Amino acid sequence: MGDADRYLLLVDIIQSVRWSDDGRGVRIIDQRELPARYIERDLRTLDQLCDAIRTLAVRGAPAIGIAGAMGLVVILSQEQHENRDGLLARAGELARSIAATRPTAVNLAWALDRMRRHASVVDGDIQDVLDALRSEATAILDEDREMCRCIGEHGARLIHDGNRIITHCNAGALATAGIGTALAAIYVAAEQGKRVSVYADETRPLLQGSRLTAWELARAGIPATVIVDSAAASLMRSAAVDLCIVGADRIAANGDVANKVGSYALAVAARHHGIPFYVAAPTTTFDPDTPTGADIVVEQRAAGEVASHFDDSNGAALVSVHNPAFDITPAHLITAIVSDQGIHEPPYDFSTMVPRSWPK
Amino acid sequence: MGDADRYLLLVDIIQSVRWSDDGRGVRIIDQRELPARYIERDLRTLDQLCDAIRTLAVRGAPAIGIAGAMGLVVILSQEQHENRDGLLARAGELARSIAATRPTAVNLAWALDRMRRHASVVDGDIQDVLDALRSEATAILDEDREMCRCIGEHGARLIHDGNRIITHCNAGALATAGIGTALAAIYVAAEQGKRVSVYADETRPLLQGSRLTAWELARAGIPATVIVDSAAASLMRSAAVDLCIVGADRIAANGDVANKVGSYALAVAARHHGIPFYVAAPTTTFDPDTPTGADIVVEQRAAGEVASHFDDSNGAALVSVHNPAFDITPAHLITAIVSDQGIHEPPYDFSTMVPRSWPK
Repeated sequence: MGDADRYLLLVDIIQSVRWSDDGRGVRIIDQRELPARYIERDLRTLDQLCDAIRTLAVRGAPAIGIAGAMGLVVILSQEQHENRDGLLARAGELARSIAATRPTAVNLAWALDRMRRHASVVDGDIQDVLDALRSEATAILDEDREMCRCIGEHGARLIHDGNRIITHCNAGALATAGIGTALAAIYVAAEQGKRVSVYADETRPLLQGSRLTAWELARAGIPATVIVDSAAASLMRSAAVDLCIVGADRIAANGDVANKVGSYALAVAARHHGIPFYVAAPTTTFDPDTPTGADIVVEQRAAGEVASHFDDSNGAALVSVHNPAFDITPAHLITAIVSDQGIHEPPYDFSTMVPRSWPK
Repeated sequence: MGDADRYLLLVDIIQSVRWSDDGRGVRIIDQRELPARYIERDLRTLDQLCDAIRTLAVRGAPAIGIAGAMGLVVILSQEQHENRDGLLARAGELARSIAATRPTAVNLAWALDRMRRHASVVDGDIQDVLDALRSEATAILDEDREMCRCIGEHGARLIHDGNRIITHCNAGALATAGIGTALAAIYVAAEQGKRVSVYADETRPLLQGSRLTAWELARAGIPATVIVDSAAASLMRSAAVDLCIVGADRIAANGDVANKVGSYALAVAARHHGIPFYVAAPTTTFDPDTPTGADIVVEQRAAGEVASHFDDSNGAALVSVHNPAFDITPAHLITAIVSDQGIHEPPYDFSTMVPRSWPK
């Protein structure tokens, strides 16, 4: 087995979301604890599920979509239902609660919508519907894993031997059911024998870059260096960067991309220095119902994530904080978008994409 | 007393560096402890002084210059000297040690150079030289306070009623002997009755923005909001920012500016959005001996500042870190540089500045 194969084996065994052993819970790697501790948790209740998504124990647009779909099955399976209609009504109610935890990533709303629609067309009694929903959630997980691999294959064509790459946040195995999105391209490039190295933006405030991306890359044996987010621009100026690649939480119909706050800053810096800026995401992250980035709701998160140590003894914040979780990168700053279906270049037209993502 | 007067009284009582009560130490506010605790420390030995500068207990280009000059006096005054020549030799030796703690800010090297030169031209015996050096260090402190006020007066002309301002790191009272450099402009604008609000970049890795700038602005009653550094660009895109103003650690002869890492990223974003990017610094930060930014040594700091919690149980770093303390903003991205002598616009020519900064 060559070095290249080993990369993907190491990454492939990261399973950020799966069924618990008894099938009655959603088993996640608790990403709040990494890299200090590797802890798996089984989510069995609505509170546990919503809390895990809200606090980023499970995170990454594809992964929260999968966790949401699987969680819906877990919760519905525990409850008593009067009849089929009662089950469907309850499914809709739960889907709304789960989707409300994080508004920006479209994958969560998409996965829950897919589950709800599937439930409504299944024939049979309550158990038939529950069985069908379990199969559907498993299908969402399996499809995501396949899409990751396809993204990696397409994205690797954009990466050349010797390339030095900047990425932001974590768009890797931890964010998906497979080998990631942005990182998938890097893993497949490495698998192909290309020597690559990665600068991981630490990604404030929650440090997904230094905690998660650095951890994943280290496991895969890919040289990684953590930088503070604001050092990316000066690295580009010193000609130490060949390309940027990031994931996405929602891609609007015109190619505008919502992703972790700081992605836009990186895109602006990349444009200033003439460096390609790529986005990688599965079909499920493309949202034809959102015309432009201006239509995307950007989640605002708690001040304490940025300045928790600036509270007085009564817990009152001594400073005001603006803490958007995401920003919008306009399509014109994006060199290309890599999906499982290929490499899309501007002007963006996603109308020819196989519409498995939004079964209407 | 109006609100405006109150602003500056509150800021003026911040004395980041001064003589200790007995005159045998350098009294600093320990900026590692803010905002949780306000602690003053007296630095009495070479180790204490160098450690305080190296660990940013005292920080800010002007403040470390002052602390270095005063510390030189404190240490020389404790020691036994054979004769005048021995004292001068020892002064040179100490100056080299102190200057080596932080290479980028020119003020430290400048202040120590000024002290050494002054010692060499003073007549008299050992005590005469020590007395003269004490007066010279006090003069450096007093002049810095005056320069801050002048920077504030000049800089306030660039700030208009209602302006929303982004600043990076801390270029305020804590960084100087007076009311600051970049923040001086904001304080004087507020004093003039202009309603201003400030976004403070948190400034990773050491959080001088969220810890120090937010603390200072809150004391002065100026509305301040902390953001992660990488959110500045998207704020600009949303038209929430009218101008940027930052301090400087060294200004090269061509107008290139070394300042806290991330300043360049901010300048790039400001240019992309057509927002003015100003730099404010006293004459002592201008270095005619450094032709361009490429000639400035950028201090590299320890990985642990970025990723200290990513060590294994033996303290070995699990990730590689690139941690430059500063970056270089090229002159062409700087709308204007504010000094105590006025507002300088490109093409930059500092040859007409009163050369009190580099007495040759």
